Amino acid sequence: MEKSPVSAAVIRRLPRYLRYLGELLLRDVERISSQELSRLMGLTASQVRQDFNCFGGYGQQGYGYNVAFLHREIASILGIEEQQDAILVGAGNLGRALINHISFERRGFHLVDIYDRDPKLVGSSLHGHTVHHIDLLEEHCARHLPSIAILTVPRLAAGEVVTRLVACGVKGFWNFSSLDIRLPDVTVENVRLGDSLMTLRYRMKQRD
Amino acid sequence: MEKSPVSAAVIRRLPRYLRYLGELLLRDVERISSQELSRLMGLTASQVRQDFNCFGGYGQQGYGYNVAFLHREIASILGIEEQQDAILVGAGNLGRALINHISFERRGFHLVDIYDRDPKLVGSSLHGHTVHHIDLLEEHCARHLPSIAILTVPRLAAGEVVTRLVACGVKGFWNFSSLDIRLPDVTVENVRLGDSLMTLRYRMKQRD
Repeated sequence: MEKSPVSAAVIRRLPRYLRYLGELLLRDVERISSQELSRLMGLTASQVRQDFNCFGGYGQQGYGYNVAFLHREIASILGIEEQQDAILVGAGNLGRALINHISFERRGFHLVDIYDRDPKLVGSSLHGHTVHHIDLLEEHCARHLPSIAILTVPRLAAGEVVTRLVACGVKGFWNFSSLDIRLPDVTVENVRLGDSLMTLRYRMKQRD
Repeated sequence: MEKSPVSAAVIRRLPRYLRYLGELLLRDVERISSQELSRLMGLTASQVRQDFNCFGGYGQQGYGYNVAFLHREIASILGIEEQQDAILVGAGNLGRALINHISFERRGFHLVDIYDRDPKLVGSSLHGHTVHHIDLLEEHCARHLPSIAILTVPRLAAGEVVTRLVACGVKGFWNFSSLDIRLPDVTVENVRLGDSLMTLRYRMKQRD
């Protein structure tokens, strides 16, 4: 099915729609109007309709949206049903928290390997995965060809690790390091926790 | 000093400017042109100039920006020099990772207390802070009046915790729970790690 390009803002909202629709499914809600869905999500009804129009509609006037159908469609647009292999590099506090906190499978990724260079961590087990030494990266990647790397290494280590991962064929980064990765043919999703906290500080100040 | 309202997109870029300017300071760079700064940051020079114009300029034609001055100004706009007290609720994996990973002081907040309800965590020490039982929340908050709460509790616990925190006078949330907080007079900065991962999945799919 051909899809027209969709704005970044709409794409950012898709996971949110999926979350709300998933909750409606759990509550056995079969149909929902754009009014009800928008009220639940704190959007306007016209925004919901516009967003869904980007993907070809799905609603019927006066009848609402079929929740299960819409959930499946958005999951399919996001691509989360075709899982890609992911590795995590950096098994420190943040890496461990992500592994325990995030359900990768529900987000379209399958975690295959974990790497670190700290001898205290190498060989330990995390959520059923053994932490490997980073020196095994090339050998393992040649076999497993992971699509993405979750990068939770300190900034000083990040540059070298990124170079090695790209040489291994990694095409995407979920980047928690403060290094800005700018490379051709590589997709990067930066998570800037410190920036988010400063934005909160600014918004609090504006309120005062 | 009066400031005109600034768009959300510009505000999101301020912490990034601060990071880059901080690095230039560390490298003893005194002046930088909008061209050089934009190249470093992967923006266009006109975007950099437009962003700084929102706050009244600071640049001189053909002379560039004074790095230390600009760094101070942006820090002051963000408000990170006047620190506000923060508490963390939820000392599980994610809460612990944030405490170890994020320098709150450099982002305008001073961490004063940590709470959890898990008897295995209560009484333990995290980064120099004792984890208190959540039942002490009201008593402590009456004394310390924290401005913000970092919310790293599971979704099912989040609703009750938010209600209690707002009753305690908490005015801002750095929200890692998947509960959408929508309350009047409360500033919320949501961090949706799962959504970020799904956005990466989508963008990888578009590339294929």
